[in-house]
Order: sequence, then C-alpha cells, then structure tokens
Amino acid sequence: MVNIAIAKGRLEKDIFEFLNKAGYRIQNNKDSRKLFIEDEERKIKCFLVKPMDVPIYVSNNIADVGICGTDSIVESEVNILQPLKLPFGKSRMVLAGFKNWQLKRQPIVVATKFPITAKRYFESHGLEAKIIKLNGSVELAPIVGLADVIVDIVETGTTLKENGLVILDEIYKISAMLVLNEIAYRTKRIEITEFLDSLRGITK
Amino acid sequence: MVNIAIAKGRLEKDIFEFLNKAGYRIQNNKDSRKLFIEDEERKIKCFLVKPMDVPIYVSNNIADVGICGTDSIVESEVNILQPLKLPFGKSRMVLAGFKNWQLKRQPIVVATKFPITAKRYFESHGLEAKIIKLNGSVELAPIVGLADVIVDIVETGTTLKENGLVILDEIYKISAMLVLNEIAYRTKRIEITEFLDSLRGITK
Repeated sequence: MVNIAIAKGRLEKDIFEFLNKAGYRIQNNKDSRKLFIEDEERKIKCFLVKPMDVPIYVSNNIADVGICGTDSIVESEVNILQPLKLPFGKSRMVLAGFKNWQLKRQPIVVATKFPITAKRYFESHGLEAKIIKLNGSVELAPIVGLADVIVDIVETGTTLKENGLVILDEIYKISAMLVLNEIAYRTKRIEITEFLDSLRGITK
Repeated sequence: MVNIAIAKGRLEKDIFEFLNKAGYRIQNNKDSRKLFIEDEERKIKCFLVKPMDVPIYVSNNIADVGICGTDSIVESEVNILQPLKLPFGKSRMVLAGFKNWQLKRQPIVVATKFPITAKRYFESHGLEAKIIKLNGSVELAPIVGLADVIVDIVETGTTLKENGLVILDEIYKISAMLVLNEIAYRTKRIEITEFLDSLRGITK
C-alpha cells in the first residue's frame, strides 16, 4: 500500500481528477467522515492535510509520497525527493507592491505567508529585509502601511489588482509536485515505482 | 478615529454583536468589497484579519486596538497591552492524546498549531519534547503516528472524541481579549479611553 498525503484546498480537485485519470478509483467524498480514501485493488491510501503539512508528513515517513505545490516544499525546508512535476496547479510566487514602488530605505518591510521564500529572495539580491509573517490577507499589508511590499502567490492577479498592487518581480514558478520519502522509496520500491510509472504515463 | 483589527472566523460574529451592543453601528457585510468597516459618528474603523495576525497589526501600531483570542496573543510573542477580557470566545488550550496514554519515551513528539504554547508547557513540566508545527487537522497526527500527543484548542470536544482522543491536561483557558498598542494609548488616549469605557460598560 502506498500512503499518499494530499494537499487540501486549491489543488484538491485537480489531484483527484489526475489520480482518476491514472486509473485509481478514489473519490473525494466530503460528507464522509472517513480519514482515508483507498483504492484497495490498486493499493493506494490517501489522506488530506493542509498543503504546507504535506512535506511534514512525507519527511517524517508517515506518508510515502505527497502531492502539493512548489511553495509548500520550499517553505517546509525538509529533505524530500521531488521525482515528478505534475501538469496542474500552475501559479507564481511573486514580489508585489504599489505601482512605481521604489527602494528608498532598508530594511525593506515585507509581509508574507512565505517567510523562507522571502528571506532567500532578499538575501540573494543583497537587500536587507524585515520579514513580517502573516497568516492571511497579505494584500492588506501595504494598504494599511504594515509593509512596503509583499511576497505572495498569484494565480489570476485579480486580488492584487483589486488592492491596487502590481507584480514587481517573479520569484519562482509554482506547479503541483509529487514528493517522495527516500526511506519509503527504498523499502517499498516496487509499489512506489508502479505508482510513479502510472502517473508518468499521463504527464507526458 | 480608533483603528481596530478584528479576528476573522470563529470570533467574528460575537465581536460584531458585542460592538453593536456597545452602541457602535457597524455591520459585517461579507458581500461588500470594502476593506474597512466604519462608524464615522462614534469614530471607530475596523478591519478583519486572521486571528493570529491581530497581535502583529497591533504591535506594529497599524491598529490601535485588536480583538482576538488568548491563544493568538500567546503565540505571537509580541509586546502589547491586554486591558480587557471580553465575555465571549471561551475555549481551552489542552494537551490531548489517546486514552491511557503514558509517557514512555522522551522526547515526546507533539503536533500542534501552537508551537510557542507547546514549548512552554513541556519546558515548565521539565519534559523534553519534539514539536512538529502543523497548519491544520492536528487531531490526525496521533492516529497516523506522526505524534504521541497534540496541543490544540478545544471548544466542545467533538473533534477529539470523533478521533478517539481525550484531554490529558488543560494548559490555559481561552477568552476573547482586547489588546492595545502602548504608543497608540499615549497618543490617542482620549479616544481609546472612551472606546474602552464603552466596552467595559457591557462586560460587567
């Protein structure tokens, strides 16, 4: 049995559709109180957790594999394999702020849900930044004066636009990724290889 | 004008009812795209943020005051005044695990959304703990074997029960609290005192 940690929320629907396309008979029944969603015949067992928790479950070898976005992997700072990029969940991690924003003072005050990403970005640009970790509504921060700029995920750009913000720089491209525990890959190689191959077949 | 950061979610409805009871004419219109909810006559201006972000906005003097739960204040580790406990939002921060759980090995593995709380709790008991910070579904952690115990908020206890978990210890009682920025209190003393007095009148 391959244990799979699946990211709740934004990617959830796409992940199930993708697994179904790969021939797995699993359904995301939200009314069910069951913790695990299984395809007994094809031997996969899924459970849903918050996106940022997927790498935690995989790196601790509770899940053999996980499916989540690039952003969750970068922020978790754990040691996991990333054998497969999946063909959905596309978005971008960006630096955003008011149009015509210019660097006037350092440290730059940055609000973000992604402090690791933000820290690395400013360090790599040789800029001093004070990073304020927020849990939500990051686009509010420049408007109320909490931060100069934000580091956040952008899909359509609507939220930024509604708040008078623009993309100042692209930090990295985001995609859904399959992540894998190295020990699990050694101890369950046959099952995991079979699972990976079934997904590879439809990502081409 | 008193700027107020209000915790979204669990406490939101109670906060608005409470402010209305204190005579403020503000409505939480979810369809509105407005960032701020104002009572111009009585001079308050509210904005909604994630509970854990309330102390951040207050400590950075973006909001003069904030309303959130004890848990958010403990976790933020910032320096803010707590002049008033409010008569709603009651719950408890607890240590939970399987019934008959016994300490067999150290470090104890603890899953929680509240790492500061968990760290302090185990330190104060002289116990070594490995704290795994999760973003959600903490009650899943003991079931799948990620953690021995969890530190989490309990309101009714239903979630714990459904997952076969019980309360092992109460860490602290939670209530909605009014928090206050010290500098704002000095520079806007008259307005803030008036606001506090209007709330104190109905907490008795």
